Amino acid sequence: MGKSHYTNAGIKKNKAFSVNIPSEDLVVATDYVGLVSGKKTDKSDVFEIFYGKLPSAPLINECPINMACRLYDVYDTPTHDLFIGEIVETYADESVLNDGKVDLAQVKPLLFDMSSIKYWSIGKPIAACWNIGKQLKKK
Amino acid sequence: MGKSHYTNAGIKKNKAFSVNIPSEDLVVATDYVGLVSGKKTDKSDVFEIFYGKLPSAPLINECPINMACRLYDVYDTPTHDLFIGEIVETYADESVLNDGKVDLAQVKPLLFDMSSIKYWSIGKPIAACWNIGKQLKKK
Repeated sequence: MGKSHYTNAGIKKNKAFSVNIPSEDLVVATDYVGLVSGKKTDKSDVFEIFYGKLPSAPLINECPINMACRLYDVYDTPTHDLFIGEIVETYADESVLNDGKVDLAQVKPLLFDMSSIKYWSIGKPIAACWNIGKQLKKK
Repeated sequence: MGKSHYTNAGIKKNKAFSVNIPSEDLVVATDYVGLVSGKKTDKSDVFEIFYGKLPSAPLINECPINMACRLYDVYDTPTHDLFIGEIVETYADESVLNDGKVDLAQVKPLLFDMSSIKYWSIGKPIAACWNIGKQLKKK
């Protein structure tokens, strides 16, 4: 994350952070928290927060997938902090599970493209990984 | 990348690598090169290769987007090498450009989901980033 972000200092101090996957229907609130900085604006009431095992990793209730991470290391670059975390626990809403596994078609994750400066939806499954390519194997 | 990959030694030796974005229509060949290791099988004839400024970063002609990277650093973990590269040059097929910018709708990138073990397509643009959320700003 760019060093100018207010979040960076909090992660370094608390040695924890969370990763929350927003669905398409959260686009307005998700964009809003990316637009305004916590340095100037209190954003703590935009989403409903809950906590798991890590007392300083707030998790977003509205997001179908949440990961609480312990800070493992920070890789320093001139412009960005690269935060490397160990996932301590993962939460998934029952509604996005299929046979106990996360189903992207239900998550409807909000994708971010820096080139078009747009959010994109995910499309459809195309083929099975480590499988469809077998037809090219030499006999 | 997992340390067991044959590619890792090559990147460390040549201090260069490339990132190539395959389109949906390359799913079979892309999956194939992920299925077999260069340690045992010569995969150099699967795609057509070209070179830019970096003589040891082969670029894939069939992929609409290619980035040649100089190896900047390797962050070492017990199981993975995290390769940090500096993008030296980027190539984009004319056919995926719109007003000189990469258009994801034309790229049709192949997305990879480790949970479903499937490739997915990208969907549609949803909203403008750093914009749609403005409606939540307090007056």
